[in-house]
Amino acid sequence: IKVIDWNPVMAEKAGYKHFMLKEIYEQPRAIIDTIRGKYSLEEGEIYFGEVDYETIKDIEKITIVACGTSWHAGLVGKFYIENFAKIPVEVDIASEFRYRNPIATNKTLLIPISQSGETADTIAALRMSKKMGAKVVSICNVVGSTIARESDGVIYTHAGPEIGVASTKAFTTQLASLFLFALFLGQKKGVLEKSEIKSILNDLIQLPEKIEEVLKHDKQIEDIAKEFVRYKNFLYLGRHYNYPIALEGALKLKEISYIHAEGYPAGEMKHGPIALIDKEMPVFVLGTKSRVYDKILANVEEVKARDGIVISTVTKGDKDIISKSDYSFILPVTLEELTPFLNSIIIQLFAYHASNLLGLDVDQPRNLAKSVTVE
Amino acid sequence: IKVIDWNPVMAEKAGYKHFMLKEIYEQPRAIIDTIRGKYSLEEGEIYFGEVDYETIKDIEKITIVACGTSWHAGLVGKFYIENFAKIPVEVDIASEFRYRNPIATNKTLLIPISQSGETADTIAALRMSKKMGAKVVSICNVVGSTIARESDGVIYTHAGPEIGVASTKAFTTQLASLFLFALFLGQKKGVLEKSEIKSILNDLIQLPEKIEEVLKHDKQIEDIAKEFVRYKNFLYLGRHYNYPIALEGALKLKEISYIHAEGYPAGEMKHGPIALIDKEMPVFVLGTKSRVYDKILANVEEVKARDGIVISTVTKGDKDIISKSDYSFILPVTLEELTPFLNSIIIQLFAYHASNLLGLDVDQPRNLAKSVTVE
Repeated sequence: IKVIDWNPVMAEKAGYKHFMLKEIYEQPRAIIDTIRGKYSLEEGEIYFGEVDYETIKDIEKITIVACGTSWHAGLVGKFYIENFAKIPVEVDIASEFRYRNPIATNKTLLIPISQSGETADTIAALRMSKKMGAKVVSICNVVGSTIARESDGVIYTHAGPEIGVASTKAFTTQLASLFLFALFLGQKKGVLEKSEIKSILNDLIQLPEKIEEVLKHDKQIEDIAKEFVRYKNFLYLGRHYNYPIALEGALKLKEISYIHAEGYPAGEMKHGPIALIDKEMPVFVLGTKSRVYDKILANVEEVKARDGIVISTVTKGDKDIISKSDYSFILPVTLEELTPFLNSIIIQLFAYHASNLLGLDVDQPRNLAKSVTVE
Repeated sequence: IKVIDWNPVMAEKAGYKHFMLKEIYEQPRAIIDTIRGKYSLEEGEIYFGEVDYETIKDIEKITIVACGTSWHAGLVGKFYIENFAKIPVEVDIASEFRYRNPIATNKTLLIPISQSGETADTIAALRMSKKMGAKVVSICNVVGSTIARESDGVIYTHAGPEIGVASTKAFTTQLASLFLFALFLGQKKGVLEKSEIKSILNDLIQLPEKIEEVLKHDKQIEDIAKEFVRYKNFLYLGRHYNYPIALEGALKLKEISYIHAEGYPAGEMKHGPIALIDKEMPVFVLGTKSRVYDKILANVEEVKARDGIVISTVTKGDKDIISKSDYSFILPVTLEELTPFLNSIIIQLFAYHASNLLGLDVDQPRNLAKSVTVE
């Protein structure tokens, strides 16, 4: 008699212990699938066949609405669009937007972001905006979902099915979609030259490989997570492109490890949160190279001056933040705008290992549903 | 020999144990001083002599920049201005704004908010915006401060000197200034009728008296704080006008009690934070009557279904939230837009008593400075 030591669920997990871990590892592939066919490196051009540019060419303002992890993607998306296309962007939480008297006109482009395309608050925000005349281009993962059907155009993330409740590959493919869409708008508005687009694309296409490199930190992250699972509180700090990733890092840890982690733009630390810092509250700093590197370094010094414990991400070749941190993860060099992708992998794996080491149900955390289809 | 049992510092505290407590109690007076001379109830008119409306009449967008508690005032201010004047408002954290490539034009009105008028990041944001052509009307408490001097117009809050590091009366007078300025813009833009302004002013002028009423909860708040100072974590929830007050409530508790409190828009709870809720994480819910009352009620029920402990603020006559809460503070009836003032008093006193009961330095919390005049 042969003993079959796997079952269909394990098979779906492709040998990974949890869906979340499998989905974290699928990110290089998911990003390749999401950006495929949307650019020509030779021409320095971006294509979005699914969006009729003629219908949105007169927009003066973009409003992004989303919830949870998708809202964090939207916050990064604002920086992409304002940087590459110089169109002002407002990002709103769908449950807040829908119960105010938000302002939208026929010069507004609404971008709802939702993995499932069925998030109740986001659907409501979409319908309100359409009534006010806004154009709608949504970012969804599930084909034919309500949000996809009710939009004027849909940008699909090609993450594939996401089973783990804590979103991972849906998030980074949302980032990839927003990044390319921002380049597309910048090209159409004449803000970006072909040569600039070519140069940026060159970095983008190397991203999946760099993510593979970051995934090799897995064992190191697990080892460090072992040191930290005894803590009950965490602070995550980032600035600019990585401020939303600090929020996302804290959310991941909350969702699956039930550790009270909070994300903050690092510049706000002195306006309150620094009072909390002591040996019992480790600080996770996203310190990859960027225009705000010196500012983040100063924040790290402030934390250390208060006996805080610092875990940081840094860019290969870093000397300053790494020397002041208790633990660091060294990430490959990439474009500043693409560092959120690399930092995301680290914070996802850190939360994953914390949850797993605590013996919790990684894929089905308590109290949470995969899609929030009711209010 | 006569024993003099007070010293000059005590005299300045006017008999209060701490400056913060004195400043909490000064709020009715500070609000009266701030709004004085700015309205005529008979005429249903608002006056802002310090702002040359001609220079800002063509603005199409308002950007509010601030840090910490002033940023929370700005978040409420956005809702006031969008509701009363229908001008789109973006609120940004000064330390984030200054290191991006933010978008401003000569159709932008920048409103920097700073108690001291010397907040380094806010000054930098002001200077950047002026270079891009924006008009500047600031809200400051300190006369002749840098921000005041460099603005096209200044709206002074008449809070008087604020000594406690944790801002209280500066915050509510910022709210009062934003409320009146929103009415002023609504009047000038023709969005509000005289009769509407009259009716709203009628509620506003009753506010100081209602705050006096709320201050009578002091002993009750102290008693409830006694039950809760043993907790290490807190969640503050609110929606719409009171979502920023949830952030402010959490910040106050962080600043002076070193308890890890986090504020959230209540609608986001299901997208993550609900996983944290158990008997060790009390939830402070701002549940005063409003258009989102039923939604807040549903959030309270979700917390209770997970064995959470709920402390709530409710409006006199409330039946539902009060019956589901473990502890409630009953507040006077007022206009929905003015509930942030009343809720602020409760969260300020709660943080004050928690800090005092823990034997901490209320007025000079560790690691914090009154004005963040360096980056």
